[in-house]
Amino acid sequence: MSFDVHIPTRIVFGPGTLDELAKLPLPGKKAMIVISQGNSMRRLGFLDRVISLLAQQNISCEVYDKIQANPIKRHVHEGTALIKKLGCDFIIGLGGGSSIDSAKAMAVLVANGGDYWDYIGTGTGKGKPLLHQPLPVVAITTTAGTGTEADPWTVITNEETNEKIGFGAKGTFPILSIVDPELMLSVPPTFTAYQGFDAFFHATEGYIANIANEISDLYALKSIALIAKWLPVAIAEPNNIEARTHVALANTLSGLVESTSSCTSSHSMEHALSAFHPEMPHGVGLILLSEGYYRFFAGKVDGRMGDIAETMGWSVGEKRGRERDLIFVDALLDFQKKCHVDTLQASDYGASSTKLENYAHNARTAMSRLFTMDRYTLSFAETKEIINTIFER
Amino acid sequence: MSFDVHIPTRIVFGPGTLDELAKLPLPGKKAMIVISQGNSMRRLGFLDRVISLLAQQNISCEVYDKIQANPIKRHVHEGTALIKKLGCDFIIGLGGGSSIDSAKAMAVLVANGGDYWDYIGTGTGKGKPLLHQPLPVVAITTTAGTGTEADPWTVITNEETNEKIGFGAKGTFPILSIVDPELMLSVPPTFTAYQGFDAFFHATEGYIANIANEISDLYALKSIALIAKWLPVAIAEPNNIEARTHVALANTLSGLVESTSSCTSSHSMEHALSAFHPEMPHGVGLILLSEGYYRFFAGKVDGRMGDIAETMGWSVGEKRGRERDLIFVDALLDFQKKCHVDTLQASDYGASSTKLENYAHNARTAMSRLFTMDRYTLSFAETKEIINTIFER
Repeated sequence: MSFDVHIPTRIVFGPGTLDELAKLPLPGKKAMIVISQGNSMRRLGFLDRVISLLAQQNISCEVYDKIQANPIKRHVHEGTALIKKLGCDFIIGLGGGSSIDSAKAMAVLVANGGDYWDYIGTGTGKGKPLLHQPLPVVAITTTAGTGTEADPWTVITNEETNEKIGFGAKGTFPILSIVDPELMLSVPPTFTAYQGFDAFFHATEGYIANIANEISDLYALKSIALIAKWLPVAIAEPNNIEARTHVALANTLSGLVESTSSCTSSHSMEHALSAFHPEMPHGVGLILLSEGYYRFFAGKVDGRMGDIAETMGWSVGEKRGRERDLIFVDALLDFQKKCHVDTLQASDYGASSTKLENYAHNARTAMSRLFTMDRYTLSFAETKEIINTIFER
Repeated sequence: MSFDVHIPTRIVFGPGTLDELAKLPLPGKKAMIVISQGNSMRRLGFLDRVISLLAQQNISCEVYDKIQANPIKRHVHEGTALIKKLGCDFIIGLGGGSSIDSAKAMAVLVANGGDYWDYIGTGTGKGKPLLHQPLPVVAITTTAGTGTEADPWTVITNEETNEKIGFGAKGTFPILSIVDPELMLSVPPTFTAYQGFDAFFHATEGYIANIANEISDLYALKSIALIAKWLPVAIAEPNNIEARTHVALANTLSGLVESTSSCTSSHSMEHALSAFHPEMPHGVGLILLSEGYYRFFAGKVDGRMGDIAETMGWSVGEKRGRERDLIFVDALLDFQKKCHVDTLQASDYGASSTKLENYAHNARTAMSRLFTMDRYTLSFAETKEIINTIFER
């Protein structure tokens, strides 16, 4: 039993905590606020609120508002140029994972220069070390999905090479994250579900990963229990702040899982799908893959899928080995039904079994590292076999 | 539900991890190693090992070796003068809580100057803010008791005023903590028990404190479950590395509880006892107080003592309210028996009921803050009533 844990992020969590931005210590005097290209941060008044809370600390703001749902390298470069030109000394990611991840990526690039892909460790990335501490990032999350507020990871798509790759370093943790579930009340039910499943799979993958440890297990099982109980409520009653708060907590815990354990190859396979089909939400890709992935891994994860089923309230009785793990697959399918995501179709997002080779190849090169986190090492054929199950639903 | 969590310490945990000191990033080139006045760090070879591991990084060392079991202000000042004179740029606390706490206190004083009591917030302390970031501290813990490797707290006794006061700030977290259970194999059974109960009470107090939250609860219940299961094993079989590892993990988790929740007035009362009777180990004082303290608080902690009993494997059945909480008192007394600490006597350490007023007054002034962490506010008379129970065992 051993671990090496270092999470330098200050996490301020709870309904109403956005207001604390007016007095929390911040790392600069001029913020670049990174938001999505949609209008939601303005329409919901979040952008204005953040700007006026910062003004109470005499912090001025600039805004970069082009981030896509699957954020791309070009926007990271564009934002970086703007940050340099305008002299911003810290970056605020305001929104979902895409905005916060983009803020992290810009923070790396502002401080280290060059091309963002210079620092990416897999695929066509050059794997250069970060010689300079990234600009400080503050994360203000308005969704409960990626856990990026509590981990160092940033997932950016290189639109030239069709690679969607996660990257992170000691310096890419946010220095401060504000998780205010009141900001999540307006997320529509479908996206609440997709994002909630993303958080759920961060916890389940982190629990079956071969580097799971006592600390990550603690976060993972708590996250799983909370999501199993509260995600269906948050989907059915979007304004239920208690449900939103518990799902937000689960998501933050899942971020801590990603900081202390790791995702597994399921995430690599999904990144391949949404690299080819950017219109496919990450959570949808994970849901599509999940039955095939977990059915394949039943019996290969030291009984850990059975533990997850128990945490979700399912009885495993006297079952052992693969049979016990398969109870989690039952629990997963039941949970998908409860969250109304059991009828998603890969073809609705343009995915096609004719591209199976491409998906599998992309998954195993762009995000090769996560394949080393599985308790069983997948072959190319097995990778294809799992991805192919998304067309058999 | 809300919390504000920030634990900037890197924690490297596991049997054999001391060796990583040869390659872990460290914050300076000349370390002051703070150890206790006893000979154990030399006798066990730990001091030589640390010095030679640091030498592999071309880091030179000085040693301050006068720390007492209840560390005193004079030694903090003496060590500080030596650090300045010798030009050390970081401090390593090697040993139990007393050495690590002294290292933290020296770190404060080296950077901020003046008298250490200038910065203490209660009792006769002057409550000055820390204007300068303390020198970096690395904690290498050889006991499983205080949790100081995972929290910002340092407990120093002012021998002139008879005050034993905990103090801490954002800058007093260790930057790196190495928790290697192999270093704990030689702790004798009695001290293993005393230290283990200290960790246990950090978790139980943190769980019943009025600022407990979902994160601290997670750490606290896990710590309690581990100690209940493994402390008796570590006492009975000192060389059982599995038991030592689980108790060490519980202790680190309890440190995280102290970083995310708080101790309660029980710790204030104990500090008063060991301020007057420095020969009384902190864990002994807590054990002596525990039955009276928890019996008094049964029914006043929103059912949380019952939760603890359940975590320790006791069934609470249909019981409710005070009756349910009292099951924890049964569990506690049974656990004391299992750990052979049920026959400790306050008088063996010089405590006397004639000093009851002094103890209560000291507890309520020197460590007044912890009285505000209870779910029920104790009067002076009630404080005396609880302390008096240590003479009725």
